[in-house]
Parts: sequence; structure tokens; C-alpha cells
Amino acid sequence: MKKIIKGGTIATATDLFKADILIEDEKITQIGLNLSAKDAEIIDASGKYVFPGGVDPHTHLDMPFNNTVTDDNWETGTIAAAFGGTTTILDFCLTAGEKNLADAVKKWHEKAADKAVIDYGFHLMVSELDDATLKELPIILEKEGITSIKVFLAYAKEFQATDRTLFQAFKAGKQNNAVIMVHCENGSVIDELVNEAKASGHTDPIYHALTRPPELEGEATKRAIELAHIADAKLYVVHVTCKEAVDEIIKAREKGYKVFGETCPPYLTLDQTELERPNFEGAKYVWSPPLRPKGHQEHLWNALKAKQLQTIGSDQCSFNFNGKKQLGRDDFSKIPNGGPFIEDRFSVLYSEGVHKGRITINEFVESISTNAAKIFGLFPQKGTIAIGSDADIVIFDPTIEREISAKTHHMNVDYSAFEGMKVTGEPVSVLSRGKFVIKDKTFVGQLGSGKYLKRTSSPFTEKKSKAVASTK
Amino acid sequence: MKKIIKGGTIATATDLFKADILIEDEKITQIGLNLSAKDAEIIDASGKYVFPGGVDPHTHLDMPFNNTVTDDNWETGTIAAAFGGTTTILDFCLTAGEKNLADAVKKWHEKAADKAVIDYGFHLMVSELDDATLKELPIILEKEGITSIKVFLAYAKEFQATDRTLFQAFKAGKQNNAVIMVHCENGSVIDELVNEAKASGHTDPIYHALTRPPELEGEATKRAIELAHIADAKLYVVHVTCKEAVDEIIKAREKGYKVFGETCPPYLTLDQTELERPNFEGAKYVWSPPLRPKGHQEHLWNALKAKQLQTIGSDQCSFNFNGKKQLGRDDFSKIPNGGPFIEDRFSVLYSEGVHKGRITINEFVESISTNAAKIFGLFPQKGTIAIGSDADIVIFDPTIEREISAKTHHMNVDYSAFEGMKVTGEPVSVLSRGKFVIKDKTFVGQLGSGKYLKRTSSPFTEKKSKAVASTK
Amino acid sequence: MKKIIKGGTIATATDLFKADILIEDEKITQIGLNLSAKDAEIIDASGKYVFPGGVDPHTHLDMPFNNTVTDDNWETGTIAAAFGGTTTILDFCLTAGEKNLADAVKKWHEKAADKAVIDYGFHLMVSELDDATLKELPIILEKEGITSIKVFLAYAKEFQATDRTLFQAFKAGKQNNAVIMVHCENGSVIDELVNEAKASGHTDPIYHALTRPPELEGEATKRAIELAHIADAKLYVVHVTCKEAVDEIIKAREKGYKVFGETCPPYLTLDQTELERPNFEGAKYVWSPPLRPKGHQEHLWNALKAKQLQTIGSDQCSFNFNGKKQLGRDDFSKIPNGGPFIEDRFSVLYSEGVHKGRITINEFVESISTNAAKIFGLFPQKGTIAIGSDADIVIFDPTIEREISAKTHHMNVDYSAFEGMKVTGEPVSVLSRGKFVIKDKTFVGQLGSGKYLKRTSSPFTEKKSKAVASTK
Amino acid sequence: MKKIIKGGTIATATDLFKADILIEDEKITQIGLNLSAKDAEIIDASGKYVFPGGVDPHTHLDMPFNNTVTDDNWETGTIAAAFGGTTTILDFCLTAGEKNLADAVKKWHEKAADKAVIDYGFHLMVSELDDATLKELPIILEKEGITSIKVFLAYAKEFQATDRTLFQAFKAGKQNNAVIMVHCENGSVIDELVNEAKASGHTDPIYHALTRPPELEGEATKRAIELAHIADAKLYVVHVTCKEAVDEIIKAREKGYKVFGETCPPYLTLDQTELERPNFEGAKYVWSPPLRPKGHQEHLWNALKAKQLQTIGSDQCSFNFNGKKQLGRDDFSKIPNGGPFIEDRFSVLYSEGVHKGRITINEFVESISTNAAKIFGLFPQKGTIAIGSDADIVIFDPTIEREISAKTHHMNVDYSAFEGMKVTGEPVSVLSRGKFVIKDKTFVGQLGSGKYLKRTSSPFTEKKSKAVASTK
Repeated sequence: MKKIIKGGTIATATDLFKADILIEDEKITQIGLNLSAKDAEIIDASGKYVFPGGVDPHTHLDMPFNNTVTDDNWETGTIAAAFGGTTTILDFCLTAGEKNLADAVKKWHEKAADKAVIDYGFHLMVSELDDATLKELPIILEKEGITSIKVFLAYAKEFQATDRTLFQAFKAGKQNNAVIMVHCENGSVIDELVNEAKASGHTDPIYHALTRPPELEGEATKRAIELAHIADAKLYVVHVTCKEAVDEIIKAREKGYKVFGETCPPYLTLDQTELERPNFEGAKYVWSPPLRPKGHQEHLWNALKAKQLQTIGSDQCSFNFNGKKQLGRDDFSKIPNGGPFIEDRFSVLYSEGVHKGRITINEFVESISTNAAKIFGLFPQKGTIAIGSDADIVIFDPTIEREISAKTHHMNVDYSAFEGMKVTGEPVSVLSRGKFVIKDKTFVGQLGSGKYLKRTSSPFTEKKSKAVASTK
Repeated sequence: MKKIIKGGTIATATDLFKADILIEDEKITQIGLNLSAKDAEIIDASGKYVFPGGVDPHTHLDMPFNNTVTDDNWETGTIAAAFGGTTTILDFCLTAGEKNLADAVKKWHEKAADKAVIDYGFHLMVSELDDATLKELPIILEKEGITSIKVFLAYAKEFQATDRTLFQAFKAGKQNNAVIMVHCENGSVIDELVNEAKASGHTDPIYHALTRPPELEGEATKRAIELAHIADAKLYVVHVTCKEAVDEIIKAREKGYKVFGETCPPYLTLDQTELERPNFEGAKYVWSPPLRPKGHQEHLWNALKAKQLQTIGSDQCSFNFNGKKQLGRDDFSKIPNGGPFIEDRFSVLYSEGVHKGRITINEFVESISTNAAKIFGLFPQKGTIAIGSDADIVIFDPTIEREISAKTHHMNVDYSAFEGMKVTGEPVSVLSRGKFVIKDKTFVGQLGSGKYLKRTSSPFTEKKSKAVASTK
Repeated sequence: MKKIIKGGTIATATDLFKADILIEDEKITQIGLNLSAKDAEIIDASGKYVFPGGVDPHTHLDMPFNNTVTDDNWETGTIAAAFGGTTTILDFCLTAGEKNLADAVKKWHEKAADKAVIDYGFHLMVSELDDATLKELPIILEKEGITSIKVFLAYAKEFQATDRTLFQAFKAGKQNNAVIMVHCENGSVIDELVNEAKASGHTDPIYHALTRPPELEGEATKRAIELAHIADAKLYVVHVTCKEAVDEIIKAREKGYKVFGETCPPYLTLDQTELERPNFEGAKYVWSPPLRPKGHQEHLWNALKAKQLQTIGSDQCSFNFNGKKQLGRDDFSKIPNGGPFIEDRFSVLYSEGVHKGRITINEFVESISTNAAKIFGLFPQKGTIAIGSDADIVIFDPTIEREISAKTHHMNVDYSAFEGMKVTGEPVSVLSRGKFVIKDKTFVGQLGSGKYLKRTSSPFTEKKSKAVASTK
Repeated sequence: MKKIIKGGTIATATDLFKADILIEDEKITQIGLNLSAKDAEIIDASGKYVFPGGVDPHTHLDMPFNNTVTDDNWETGTIAAAFGGTTTILDFCLTAGEKNLADAVKKWHEKAADKAVIDYGFHLMVSELDDATLKELPIILEKEGITSIKVFLAYAKEFQATDRTLFQAFKAGKQNNAVIMVHCENGSVIDELVNEAKASGHTDPIYHALTRPPELEGEATKRAIELAHIADAKLYVVHVTCKEAVDEIIKAREKGYKVFGETCPPYLTLDQTELERPNFEGAKYVWSPPLRPKGHQEHLWNALKAKQLQTIGSDQCSFNFNGKKQLGRDDFSKIPNGGPFIEDRFSVLYSEGVHKGRITINEFVESISTNAAKIFGLFPQKGTIAIGSDADIVIFDPTIEREISAKTHHMNVDYSAFEGMKVTGEPVSVLSRGKFVIKDKTFVGQLGSGKYLKRTSSPFTEKKSKAVASTK
């Protein structure tokens, strides 16, 4: 099987040039002018951008949460991702409630295997690290090619780790050369603030935001940073939303700490007033951390531009407004936390970032694809257009103008958080390992064609840093 | 009973002038030139400084700790304090292990009542705040005139509060207009580092410092600051030792947060190398937070000079080297934490601060006496030389040169952390409410003459700040 | 001559207590309960505060500026000051245009001598330091008891010093133990921005503010700080107006630099929108640095509360609206820079600060009187109520509510920048060296009774700091 | 003419993969596996890295300085650059002393034209901007394709611009979409410190460093940053050496300012003690800004790693030790400022950066080549290996271990600042537009083959920022 993508403008995290791409057996084998090859299928990309497929480092598909479950599973979720220009996702494998890590991972494989239409990997999500788990951890990481572990400092009742567990996770990260991902909000205090608000009779969605002030994200970010540093571990702060957290990340990086930051399209483009929408529609905007007051958005753009935040995750975690979000009608704290973003991540960042002149096209590719691939050990298989890399490719028409809407999106959810937003540019065709998944805006892929990705450790930061307390 | 102190140079936190002081019935009633009064005892203070008695906001007398108890009780401790120029102490009343707060306070009254030779008050020390305690708290604060509560973020196994408890304490502080005092170190992580060090066979005292890096003090300080701010509570950070913590305090104060900071003489004058002394003598310097590497001391002086730190506590918590400190001979983590400082607090700060030109004499009085009196609701009864204030007075000879030594000190402990330090200046006579406790360097006081002090709420910060999350 | 002030509540920078004050021969000789003295005049102060007279470190009386002159001279200016509770002023002696420093000082003495009703001193204001001036400087400082020199980084066409001159001034300050006062704005860039604005046809008063962005104050403040530090000199930043400058001052103080900051009542209470008043009334609010956008005011209050700004100057520099301010009717850059504040400095700070709970009464005294006296070498003669100090005393009724207005003020100027502001509290009687200047709100003083003050060097910061570049 | 580079490992700022490169007519036309082409010369690169040629944004060839001239001209300088892996240089065209800009540029063209063996462009170096110059500027920039202007805040006697000139330069930069490059040190104060040191009899080279403290670099950096921001101009801070400057750059970038930073190999690898070498050998290390005390080097590495510094310049400015540096034998201020670095820039950064694990190979390419090409408008012609780019290519053997020495280097200067430094890796062959300049470590190029590069404006930062003071 050979394909040649002809006449497009190829954009990587560094480059921007016109050339053809030859694909053979899932891989990119040539890039050049006027390429030809016997029997090759020719794909016309003239007037289009040719991007490496998006790498989404943050999804929650088919995930139980309290007494419900996210509405996009591995079929609808990965199809929507593909429509949106994403060809790789890293999903969080829940381990709480399972006998052991192996069982948890097995269950996650089962969710994904017959459904995924694009490639995928797993992060391990841990709440506690007892001796058995600490013993099993290296084995399962090695066997499954997992090189990232997620810990929560939020969600007091569900997932929140103690500082001890967090520190153990960092030590395990150091020993196993895994990145530790942390949701940085102080869950215990939030729980108290929620109780206070409810005791005062407050039930509206806006109280979701008011009970999670940005100071608590800044605090937890600082805490995670210092603990990671003492353990000499790599820290990846998920979904950074506010100046308070950005400031801590910048200071840490200035000191040479190994810290990465991710933000998400809604934090860059929406603000807290969305939660004040009438008719309980504010509930559509309930996720954690919450949207922030006006002003924070510009800080995030600046940090992205200044390369102090490295990646864009979707934090896809969709719940229908009807049926699911409505569970919190009388109590904001019962609204399932999460939103549908997997499909719009790529286009919103392109339109608000590149089209509006906030970031360059290379910075776009870097944050939508390349950096996540590097940090999570998928590079150079994913995250770039280069010889030998998987032919995960997005053909993108930068001239299309359209409106995001639940009416037209492919996610299995009854609303869009970006409803009515005008964007410029759209992925028209998407290839995964050289095969079309989306062709001329039509899904042509196959359920189960997506492959599980064993990953290597991040080669991104080779710097050897000294532990603060050399107690060995 | 009348006394006139004649010819001294009176120093307050603001002033410095020559005048006489008339004392009547425990109080200062006149300050002026050439005072006289019928039947008044004349005390010659010419060539001497006349200071308000020191207020030590941080002592642990007769306190159980693990399986031992501090070596200075309310007799030896308050006598040593008086020798050192301190006329008021605020001691920490342990509540853990007691049926209720009332019992705890009762026990503390019993320890002090027949022994104290100077006036004293109590801070409440809490580790947990269950419903019963939260209910009893306002009653006991009101009844006992207690306006300060201490919470630990250190000592994982003994005292460490969760973030939830800490936040509840701040809310209780707000409701009861009490200052919340916090020991800011991340106890859980320290516990892990201690276990690591021990597992690697490290037993020496220096590992006490190496397992408590300054980053963990900075982290916990930031955490306490943000939580206090959200609760709109007053925070007093005890024993600040390092740049990391100072930085957070300064930033908070710049934003208008109600945060105070205390440091202690050893952190200003000694460094971490003391813990490396041979023959296990490093154990004499084991307390928490630990002494810091060289460089931090200058930051503390600068912060004191810049009025970013307000008070000097002794953190008196004495354990004999023989018998007590030796418990940790084979395991640094078993060394009782604490040192003997109550007697030298005043003189070390004077000598290293005023005599060496680092702070002015007014700044000395402010930090050794006045600010603590103000923050803890003892002012103007204590902390100054003014009409109507208690006649707690130190007559201080700034010309005496001497060497600090366990051989000559009055604390009930077999070593001095300042052994051999040359200081200039010495309190020669000390009055408590108009009566001599020390006269010409001789103890002339009476056991039990010290009175328990009911305190008011700090009038120090009247500023009304907004809560971050207005959830009411 | 003896007087006893009876029954008032005395407030100093530290204390607050009820007592009587005995005044003999210009000095305070006793403070105490129930004082009496033969032949003493009794002044009833019951229900009143008794404050040390205000020390205003920043006035421009009878000062030429461009082709005009300020409207308050030493008669109207010092009478208004006295009405406002100020008993000492430090005025800027212009040296530019004079043959030598001696002549300049002589001229300033002549302006003041027969008119001043309160005591006063001079700062030297220099724009250039040629060899002759550098040679004359120590002589004149010594002879006149002047211990402070003012340098401008603003006013490109009138006063602006080069960096070389600024640095020479710091070196001269170091050698002569004088404080160097700096107006920190980048005059050259402002001049360019003004030219730009005018070239674009902008003539309105608001352009005065828009052409002097706070970044240029922050920049110049940082510059002055680093140059002072390298010269090991004491720096006093006059009229700090914005977060940008406050941040630099705080960072410098944290590092142990010898830096002080002054702010002024209008910067604490008014904002930039005043310059947008219709009918050219914005011109009434034209001075430099300009009023700042909303938000900066709170930063200044926080910095004052946190003791990172030390003093309150009036920056009295009054020009009538009619006749003077109108000179800039067609060109904002021709509006004489300055405003009338000498009379309201004390009351505005009391009302907005103490009465509204932003600062304590002691902090009020410290910043309105004591700190300026200390920094400029007038303490303890001025700035406090203590034995041996000059009997400069304000009897202040905190219950009076009134409205500030040009109709009632005593300054020789046709408008008030605080017109209509409601304040609580008013000085009712004011004594200078024991004599009434204001008695029951009536001027009873004598022209020429104010004395020139020879000052000592600031004993405020004794800290010895190391020069950065030890090139000796 | 065709060439195929076979079997190498290609590294760009993003990618790292094995592939062949086809070169046709000076350009890269194909990248792929197993490339072949009729008549193509085959170059074996197996076991080697294939890098884009280095872009050195900072050289001073054949430049007059005081009464002397740099020792490398465009022949020796560009040959040495080529040996060192650099295929493009941007040299500073002096305009001071010329009738007009056109003449200055003409003279610079004459210096370069017949000598350069690699491609080159010019920055304009201005000290003053009179009306004539401001008028000529847009014409000359347009005609010559120059998009960067250099201004000095250092060198009081030679080049130092006033703040007014600096600000005019920023405005000109804004109008002409040119980057303004600034040497950030406060020249006036340095001049004073130099005079002081000399007056104190100090003549040794170390006084060059002691009279230029890092605070003066931090100050000037902050100043340039704020002025650029107000003018909404792009600022490029040349040769950043210290924490003080890095801090300001990071803060500015966090706020979204358009600021770039360059550092140089000696600042990353050497420290101030080099200037203390005996026998006047310290003079070999005299350049400005000076080497800094230990500690600053790590800050620079951290900032580079964190992408807060973007480029590595050589600041080539060579003067022989004998004859030239010796001019300052009796007076450190007469030592010509500068050092020989053009040849070692690439190898030192590779060895100390990549080989020692401080940065990744992609980060190396980014800072040694790609970012400079982007910032200065040479991309994608220079700075990458991509289809359509110039075939400027370095074949680099990462296994060679060698010692840097004046004995073996190709610069026309009698010493090496890196004498004896062991480095790993060496450029073995270097192509400029497809032709060998260096082949197997031998110079095979032709004098005058280097072409002058007209540049475009930087497309690197498209972000539109608001001016601070919108005075239009």
C-alpha cells in the first residue's frame, strides 16, 4: 500500500514548507518535491495544511464517575477525536476499586479494543499506593509500556491522594522513569467550601466555581512542584487554568525543575460567567478545575506563547445535559464534572491561536501534537511528520469558516460547550498509520483498527538534577 | 508601694530618651524628668537601658513529647526567662489526649500556678477538630481569654493536622477572632524522607536536617497562607527559618493578607553545620524546623529589618543532652526535638542585632516585646513602657561583655546551644508588675507570683479583607 | 511657661494611652496621670486624641516652575499646614540657576524666615553635579545641617539628572551620610510620549496620565534602587504611586537594600479618571507622577500596612486653576504640575486609614510623623510624644464629620483636589514647641515663629551593607 | 549538480531520524529512505549527525574598536565559522562615524564581499538617531533587507545611546517591523565605577568584572524591556549573562511582552575567576558583559532549557593577546573588549549541552540555528533541514573527543578562551548551499562564495499586543 499526499503545505513544530509525502506500509518514507511511486494512491492536498495528527494526552472515555459514566465510549469518542484531527489519545485507566493494577488495565483494554478507530495509550490513575500496588507497579508499567501515572489532589471523596501518596508516586515515578501527572486543587478545602455553600442554601452551578478559588489551584501546584523536586521526579501538571498555577510553574522551570504544564481549550477561551447561564444551563460548564474569571485566559495564552505551558489536553469527559448534568439540579455538587472537548480541541486552538495571531503555526503543532508525544514517550512514532514516523496525518483546510454546534458534532453528548463559536479551519481528511479514518469529512475508518501503544520513557528531559535532600 | 527608676535611657518600639519612671501599684504612672514621690524606692538606672520586659510568644514548659518531657518546668523555665529579660511568656497548652479542652487547660493551669515567677498566657494546641471540640472551642476561648490556636503541619505521627483541620481552624479563628499559629513543614513527606534515610542506614543527627529540606517549609507556608486567606483568618507563622518561607510571607503581605511571621535566635545566628558536630553533639542542635545552610540567616535578618517578620520567639523546648537527646544515639529520628533558648532570646538578639548594627534599638524592642504583645492581645498591658501599662521592666547594662554557657545559665538543662557565644549587654534587674524578680543579677522573686493573663483579640490588624470565595 | 494637656488619649507610633502631658520651655517634660504644676496653663483634651505634630517630608512652597510659581508661599503654606495638623515641613530648596549651593540655600532661607509659623528644614534639589558643586556639597550640608538631597529622573527639560549624576549623588550621599531622594519616572521617554501625543493632536489633561505609564515609574524605581545599592547609599523614593514601583521596593528591602518609600494621600484615594473631568477640570488633577488607574490604590494601602512604604508626603505644590492651570488649556503639557495637599494630608490619612479600618492609629502616627522624622534626622526632637521632645502636638477630635472644600481650606489656591470628600476627625488645636499655632480651629500663631531645623543623619538604618563592587 | 547525503541521522529543532537527503541546485529537494538520483554525488554520513548549519546571530568581524580593529576579518572569520559548523553569520554594521547609513552599509559590504566563504547578513548598529538618520532608516532597511537594529546601553564613551535614542529605536523598530537588539548594561555607571577603581590604583583585569556588577545588567535589561513594551516593539537582548537579567526576561515573557534572549558559550561554561589568571592572562577573558561569579552559569542553562533564552550567539570579537590585549597592561580599561568564539560556539554547546545531558539534541539545534533564523527573518531559507531550504548542512561526528586549542583553531588570534577544554563531537564536513566548504576537516571553499542575505521581518511572533499608553 502506498499513498502520496501531493501539494500540501507541511507544518511541523519547526517547519513549514510545500512538499509531497510518500507513505508506505503505515510509515512516512519520503518527503520531497514531485514525488512519485508506482501504484501509489494520490491524495490532493493543494491549498491545504498537512499536519501531524493531534495527540490528545488527556481523555476520559467510558469512565465511571460517582454513580454514572461518561457518555462517550471508545467508539464515539475516538470517532469524534478523528473528526477533530486527533489520531492518538492517552486515556486514564482507573485503578480504584480493582483487585490489582493488572485487572484495572485489563478492563481498560477491554473497553477500547474493539472500538477505537485511532491509536491510544493509557495513563494509570492511582489514589493510594499500598505495598502490594507499589510492588506491582514496576511490573505493570514495564509489561504494558505505561510511562505515566496520574494522581489527584482534588476530589476529596473520590480520588484525592494524601501528600504521602503523592510523594510515593513521585518516588515511584523517579524509579520507573515515569512522568507523574497531577490534578492540582486542594480537595479537602474545596470539600469544606462546598459544605459551607450548601449549608448556606446555595445550589446553583456558579457555586461550583466559587467553591474552588484559583488560590487552591496555585497552592496545590506549588505543593506538587516541591514534592516532585525533592523526589527528583518529572511532574506534568494537568489542566492548568489560572495565573496562580502558571506563576508557580514558571518559577519552578526557571530553577531547572522538571515540570510540564498542560492547559485546555475551554480555559483559554471561556470564563466563569458561563456558569451563571440561566435555566440551569450553567451546569453544562461544570468541570474541575472550573472556568476562571476574565483575565486568566490571557495569562494562559501568554504562558503557552512563552513555552511555559507545553501541551493542550481536551480533558474529554462528557455527560449529557439531560439525564446526567441534571442530577445536580438541586445541588451543584451533584453535577457530574466534565465536558465534551475531544472533537474541538484541535480546531479551537487553531482558530483562536493561529488564525487570530496569538501563536504561530509551529507553536500550534508543538502544543497540539509534538510536545505530548515527546513527554509521554510516543515520539517520533507520533507527533511529527518525519521519515520513519507513523503516517498519522491531518489534511486541514484553513479557509473553511463554520460554527461549532452539538447539531453537527460527532460526540455522543447532547450539547456543546462551544455552541455557536465561529472557527476558521477544519480537518477534511485524517489518516491513521496511512489509512483514512476521515475522508472528505466522512468517517471511513473501522472499529477496532486503533492500536494500543506501548510507550517509552520521555526522552524529552535528559537533564540530571540533584535531589534536594540527598539522604542516600 | 512606689518605685522610681532614675536616670535610665528608656527604649520603646518607637522612642529612646532619658527619663525617670514612677511605678505605683504594679503600674507605670509617670514618665518624666526629675520625678519624685513620697516613700518611693529609688532604683538607679543611670548608664543603663530601661526596656519593657520581653514577651516570649513561644514556649513549651513541662511538655510531654513522645515518651519524655521537656526539662524546664514552670519554675526553672520562668526563672530563666526572667534572668534573660523576659517578663511574659505564652506557652502552648497541649489538648491531644485530654477528654476535652477544659481538662487540657485545667492541667496547664496546674503546671503553672504555683511555680511561675512571671506572667503568662496559653495558646491552645490542636491536632483535630471534631464536632465536640468545635463546639467547646468558643466557650473555652471566651472563658479563658485565649485568643490564639496552634496547628501543626509537621510531626506526622504526633500532631500533624490534615488540610481539612487546618482550614477548620482558620474558620474557627475567623469566627472567634483568634490568631491561628501554624508550624509550617510538610510532615508527611518528612516522614517518608526519614524512613528513606533510615532504610539507607543513616542514623546521624545531620539527617534530621537533611530530611527536612527548606522547600517543605516553603510549601507548607504557602499552603497555610492561602487557606488562611480563603477563610479570611489571621495567620501567624511560627519559627520561620528560610528564604523559601520568607518569600511566601512577603508576597502574602504585599497582597494585603493578614499574615505575621516569627523567627528565633538560633535561626538568625547558627547554621546547619552545627548538626555535624562529632561525638553525637550534633543532637544538641536537633529541633524543628532544623537549622538551615549558610545564607538563610541573612535573609531572616533582612526580613526582620524590613519588618516582614514581626516577632522573636524562643521556641523553648529543652531536653538534656544526657539521658534525653541520647535517646536518638542510634537513630536521629528518636532525638527529642527542641532546645533551650528562653534565657538567651533577649540577649542574643540585642547583641547580634543592635550591638552589631543590624537593627535599631527600637526595632529590637518591637520584635522582642511589643509586636508579640500586640498580636496576641496583651497590649498595652504588656509590651511597652507607657502610662497605665504593667511595670514589667528590664534594666539592661549594654556595656557588659560575657560568654553564654551552660555553666552559668539558669535553665534546667545540661548544655547551651549558644555555648561560648560572646554577647554584649545583660539584663541586670528585672521587674514584673513593679516587683523585682531579678535584682542585680540575683533571683529575688517568688514562686507562683506570676499571674495568668486573659487576653483580648489582637487589635493589631483592623483591616477588613474580603473573603476570596464569597459563598455566603 | 508651662502647660498641661489634660485627659487626652496620647497616640504615638507604638502606644495609645490616657495621660496628661507637662510642657516646659518648648519641651515635653512629663507624661503621667494627674499631672499638676504651679502656674501651668491647663488645656483640656478629654475626648480627644493627642498626636505628635505631623512631619511633612515633601513640600514645594514659593517655588518657581517653568514661567510661574507655586501659589502657596511660606505664610499661607505653613498656616495651612498647621491647620492640617502638621508642625514640621521639609521643603525642597532649588539649586538650579543659582551661582552655587550657598546662594541657593540663602535664597530659600529668605523665603521662609519671616513667614513660617511652624518649624522647617530643607532638602537640596540638584540636577547636575559638576566639580564645583561636588566640592561645595559637604561644606553646605555640614553648615546647614542638611542630610537629604533630591534628584529627578523625570522632567526631561527642567530637572532630569543623567544616570551618571544620579550615581554621583548616591556616592555623595554615602560619603556625607545623606539620604538621596529620587523622583522615579523616566523623563526622556515621557517627553517622547508627550511629543507623540501632541503630534497626534491630543491636548486634554488625561493625556498627562496616558503619556506617563506606570511602567516608567517601575523602571526608574528599579534603576534608582540598583544604583543606590551599588553606591551603598540610602535611597528614599518619593511619591510612589503604583504596583510597579512598590514591587521593586519590596524586592529591594527583602534583599537588605536601604530603601524607603513615600506615598501621598491622592495616590491612596483618587484615580486616573479624575483627569477626565469635563470643562478642563481634569487639569486640577495634573501632577507627577499622575493618578493611576483603579487597582493601584489598594496596592499602596497594602504596602503601607505591611510597612513597605514608610511615609506620607503631601507633595504640596499648588497652582490656581484660574490663571495657572489654565496655561495648559490648549496643551496638557503646559499645565503646571502640582496640587494643594499640605492641609489635608493628615486628615485624609486619618479618615481613610484609621477611621475606615485600613491601618491602626499607631501606623497612622508612624507614617504621618515618626518615620519621616527618623529618616530625615529630626528624631526625637520631632515625630513623637516623649520626654525631651519638642512639644509639637496636635489635639484631634475624632468625632467631627466634615467635608473638605476650597471654600473652607486655608491654602492660597482656588480649588481642592479633595473637594466634597467627607472625612471624620479634625485637628482642633496645634502646638509648635509648646505654643499654640492653632487654638480651637483659629490661627493664633505668629509669622516667622517657625525655626529652621538643622538635622542629623538618619539613625534609622544602622545596618552596614557591603558594596556590590568592592573596587577600593 | 546533485548530492545525496546518505545514512546520517538528521536532527532538526523538532525531529531526529535516519534518512537520506537529496540536494539539487543549492536546495534540499528530498528527504527519505534509500534515495537515489542520476549523477548524484554520494556523501556517506553513516554514524554521523546531519544538522542544519549553525546560524550565528552575533559577530564582529573586521570591526574598528577604539584605536584598534578586531583580528579576524571576513576571510579568517568565516573560514573559522565554517570549521566550527556555522554557515550563516549576522554581523554588526557600524554606522557611527559615517556620513549616512548608506555609506556605512556600503563599507560593510566591501569588507565582506570578496572574502566571506559562508552566507551573511548585517544588523545596523546605531548610537544616535538624528532626523536625517530616522528618515534614511526605512529606506536603507527596505533596500538592504535589514530587519534588525542594535543599540548599546553600555560603552559610555563609544556607543551608549540615551534612553531617548533607545526609545526612538524601538519606535522605529515598530514602524519598520524590525527587531531591536540591545546590549544591556548601564554604561554611565560602569564608567563611574571604572574611574573609581582606577583612582584607587586598580589596574588588573579582574577589575573589568568588578566594575560591571550584574545588577547593572539587570537594571538595563528591565529598562530596555519596559521601553520596548511601551513602543510595542520586539526586543532581542544580546549576550545575557546573569540571573538578574534572566529574571527580567522571564517576567516580561510571562506578561506577553515580545522579548527574546541570547546567551553565549563562555557565559554558560566559564566564570569570573578566569579574569584573575596571573601574568595578565586574565586579559584574555575581558569582554562585555564580563564573565560572572559561579552560580550564574546554571541559571543560564536552566533558562535555555526552559526556552526562556532562545539563541546562542558567539559575540565573536577577537583581539590578539600580544599586541592588542596588552594595550591594557597598565590599565584594565584599555584592554580591548572581546574574545574569539566563532569557531567553538557550535561544538561547545553540543558537548556541554547535549553530550552532558543538559539539553536535548533538538533544543541544541533550536538554539544554535533555528531560532536565530526565525527571529532574524532567515527562515526557512536557513535554520532547518526541510524541503526547499538552502542545503546548509553540517555532518557531525559525535564520537570524536578532542581538546580546544589555539594551536589547532582557525581563527586569526593567538589564544583560545577555551584552551584545553575537552569536547566531544566535531563537525567533519560542512556544506553551504550544497557546496562543501569544509570536507573531512579541510577547507575546500572559495573566498567570496558567501552571499549577502536580504532578510524578511521575523514571522516568529505574530501576536498583536496593545501599546501601554495608547496616545494616538
